[in-house]
Amino acid sequence: MSGKFIVFEGVEGSGKTTQIQQIQSWLQRCRLLDPATRIVTTREPGGTALGQQLRQILLQSTDDLIQDRTELLLYAADRAQHVEAYLKPLLAAGAIVLCDRYTDSTVAYQGYGRQLDQILIEQLNQIATGGLVSDLTFWLDVEVELGLERAQGRAAHDRIERADLSFHRRVQQGFTQLAAAHPQRIVRIDASLSPEAVSQQIQQVLQARLQDWYGIEFA
Amino acid sequence: MSGKFIVFEGVEGSGKTTQIQQIQSWLQRCRLLDPATRIVTTREPGGTALGQQLRQILLQSTDDLIQDRTELLLYAADRAQHVEAYLKPLLAAGAIVLCDRYTDSTVAYQGYGRQLDQILIEQLNQIATGGLVSDLTFWLDVEVELGLERAQGRAAHDRIERADLSFHRRVQQGFTQLAAAHPQRIVRIDASLSPEAVSQQIQQVLQARLQDWYGIEFA
Repeated sequence: MSGKFIVFEGVEGSGKTTQIQQIQSWLQRCRLLDPATRIVTTREPGGTALGQQLRQILLQSTDDLIQDRTELLLYAADRAQHVEAYLKPLLAAGAIVLCDRYTDSTVAYQGYGRQLDQILIEQLNQIATGGLVSDLTFWLDVEVELGLERAQGRAAHDRIERADLSFHRRVQQGFTQLAAAHPQRIVRIDASLSPEAVSQQIQQVLQARLQDWYGIEFA
Repeated sequence: MSGKFIVFEGVEGSGKTTQIQQIQSWLQRCRLLDPATRIVTTREPGGTALGQQLRQILLQSTDDLIQDRTELLLYAADRAQHVEAYLKPLLAAGAIVLCDRYTDSTVAYQGYGRQLDQILIEQLNQIATGGLVSDLTFWLDVEVELGLERAQGRAAHDRIERADLSFHRRVQQGFTQLAAAHPQRIVRIDASLSPEAVSQQIQQVLQARLQDWYGIEFA
């Protein structure tokens, strides 16, 4: 028996954190699933103790002096640790894992946003993941301006959130292209709506997939 | 005007740190060099402020839970930052840079020692260095047992020094192969001798190269 790896992607302020919590508790309440199934949430960067240290270096640095290739390699290191030490054992044990960001974020932020070489990013994603691909990825699609407005309501701003608007527009374009290139794996969700309406859309898609994966029937 | 990048490699306890200090002060006293030439020492990992944080993660971790590919990617991140933010500007300004470890250590420790894929290591070295190769590399060759005995005289032992003897033997084999493959770039130094005798050997090789590089004549 092997678990399922579900990823949530999107620009700043797209509501990933809220939705992951909602979906976790929805899945935990779902009586059709085997009650022994663990529903786990995690994130990149920072899904492991080591990743936590890397996350701090990546996001909290105030000097903006991290070189682009350094940044790319640090995300890859965080991912390699996350996949090998955390995700693979969980999935092998049958867990449903809800993950905040994965390889598509690297393509969108470092490839489109920072305009680093896409082949290099592909190579590093391959090295870091050892081939682990998500079973399903929700792209929470929200206008860049609305997302940043939401994110600005929060207390502190990290290094990525402080990047300029054109950067975030390129990131958004990256997600758009990725969703077009992988229509089966990536499902677009309209994230401009209320949290409840967004959660409804996700649940609907997820029900269909859970039926496929586990052969269970929702009413 | 462009500087020179001189690397010191070798197993634990081969005397790199001592020799780099010796050679720095020898070069600083060398009246034949332009007195404006900066003689700089640095190291990997840890040659930058960000690298210092990564060095701590890499060497001081007590739990031994860093995955092999994570380790490889962290060394690459440290190197990318070191090359772009530190080495390239220094070399462009004409400095002579003496560096404790560089790409050959990654091949020897991660490739031969940890037996990770050599093509992967080559790829990552290429990504991290952006093509910066040393002008000259001194391989301080010492028997693994003698080196570890020397290193054990020091106060604390890091994660790498605590690896088993067969690991360090494979690392040594790695340096041997690298020196055979790159006879022009890598010069073997017998590092089993006294620090003074080792320094004498290095100075002799360096004098010949400085004559070539700068057209100066030693007596």
